[in-house]
Amino acid sequence: MLTTIYLIAITAEAMSGALAAGRRSMDIFGVAVIAFVTALGGGTIRDMILGHFPIGWTQHPEYVYLVISAGLLTTLVARYMHHLKTVFLVLDAMGLIAFSLIGCGVALEMGYATPVVIMSGMITGIFGGILRDVLCNQVPVVFRHELYASVSLAVCALYLALHHFAVPEQINIAASFAAGLTLRLLAIWRGWRLPTFSYRERWE
Amino acid sequence: MLTTIYLIAITAEAMSGALAAGRRSMDIFGVAVIAFVTALGGGTIRDMILGHFPIGWTQHPEYVYLVISAGLLTTLVARYMHHLKTVFLVLDAMGLIAFSLIGCGVALEMGYATPVVIMSGMITGIFGGILRDVLCNQVPVVFRHELYASVSLAVCALYLALHHFAVPEQINIAASFAAGLTLRLLAIWRGWRLPTFSYRERWE
Amino acid sequence: MLTTIYLIAITAEAMSGALAAGRRSMDIFGVAVIAFVTALGGGTIRDMILGHFPIGWTQHPEYVYLVISAGLLTTLVARYMHHLKTVFLVLDAMGLIAFSLIGCGVALEMGYATPVVIMSGMITGIFGGILRDVLCNQVPVVFRHELYASVSLAVCALYLALHHFAVPEQINIAASFAAGLTLRLLAIWRGWRLPTFSYRERWE
Repeated sequence: MLTTIYLIAITAEAMSGALAAGRRSMDIFGVAVIAFVTALGGGTIRDMILGHFPIGWTQHPEYVYLVISAGLLTTLVARYMHHLKTVFLVLDAMGLIAFSLIGCGVALEMGYATPVVIMSGMITGIFGGILRDVLCNQVPVVFRHELYASVSLAVCALYLALHHFAVPEQINIAASFAAGLTLRLLAIWRGWRLPTFSYRERWE
Repeated sequence: MLTTIYLIAITAEAMSGALAAGRRSMDIFGVAVIAFVTALGGGTIRDMILGHFPIGWTQHPEYVYLVISAGLLTTLVARYMHHLKTVFLVLDAMGLIAFSLIGCGVALEMGYATPVVIMSGMITGIFGGILRDVLCNQVPVVFRHELYASVSLAVCALYLALHHFAVPEQINIAASFAAGLTLRLLAIWRGWRLPTFSYRERWE
Repeated sequence: MLTTIYLIAITAEAMSGALAAGRRSMDIFGVAVIAFVTALGGGTIRDMILGHFPIGWTQHPEYVYLVISAGLLTTLVARYMHHLKTVFLVLDAMGLIAFSLIGCGVALEMGYATPVVIMSGMITGIFGGILRDVLCNQVPVVFRHELYASVSLAVCALYLALHHFAVPEQINIAASFAAGLTLRLLAIWRGWRLPTFSYRERWE
């Protein structure tokens, strides 16, 4: 099940990357690169940090084809995408949560300590979007919008807690996924966001 | 032969990095860092992604000295460099193609699948310039100008095709190099570029 | 001793990251991420480049807790921090130098060549700040302000020279640390900076 959701997730992330590239008027090659980085960059950074070689997508060329195709296809259908806003937000939320759970799983299998497992999940969940924003020369939106990174944190924490109490893996994943998706969609719907820290002085 | 071209390539890339740093009025230390990252950053990221340790330049300190010297020297000769515009563009094109071929070779030797080999070549070819632009706080030019990243793709694909048909390595490299250089110079001369994707809506 | 200074250093770097995040009005999650990246990002990049797995902080969850706490605490005390300007600058200088010495030590132990050891020290010293600035969408300040990266270079070079002449490790570290701190504080006090390279032409 997680694999199916993962494929949906990288597709949605690739589309989000392509739209960001379009906002910078990149050529279609740039669109493909940003789509790739948004979809697979989080997992790549996780694997590089954990020393988890070979890196995921290098063993699954089909993922590379999928995200590049999704990115290029987006350039054709972009003008109709605002009709699909809700669908897109749900897919993106599913992607965030699937990425987070997969990231936790990788670090858990490698025997890392609990805080590293949580950070592995969060890196997988949010760093694709951070790389996308850095390459598009803007401050990462995940640090400023509705609950997003914190949903990733909550999902990872819940998953680990259930794992600790020996809840069967399948049930754990289903429960964490459902809870995370609910939280993210509620956050979008109600506009929940974290307190902001604004600092204006420049004395350094 | 590829080694000689590689040395020319990293020198040209280091100079391009130094000019970019100069456009941001960096100090000479910043110039050295950007020169280094532009020249050797693509290969570094490739090695980090492929798990190819130790990373190239750590075994060749002379490359480090070369690119830093080239970067610093550029600050002295920059005012005359527009006279050398054509030379510089040709060197830069040679660099792009040499990097791409070297990147393919590394992944091929490590036994990665074809799409990964191509991506390894492209990462080596274009990520130095992407890192340069990110550190100089601008949208990477490789995503917006004349055919550049796509020349890298074409070179990698040609090289792999000839490799597949067991063309001797030396002939393969020479042919791929010549074809790539021709394509890149034609693209500059004729202003060939890929179609652009512009997207203005902000509904996300 | 270096461990104590290291803890002070990552705390100071985390606070500097939090202030930068505040200048971009990030939410408290963004503050935590930027604090983490500023404090531990330099060492992470060093370990990824040297192939030094597992990466430092993954084996020391307490560092993760420390830097995130320091980042969040900064949001509460930020309004009073300009009173502590001098303290903060000294802590930051101590951090720069402690990071540089630790980075040299890691590469030395792994048997890398001298220029790589120096670069390892500098990457550890300055890349946290570079990542902070990239994520906050600004040109890295280390390339433009008073002597900073060059202090790191000087400290690494001195440490290696003393190491070469078989000066006992403890004395070496103390001497390098004192010399580096003096140089950095003098540079701030007197406004020493490197010559700048400004380049305006756009002929590429």
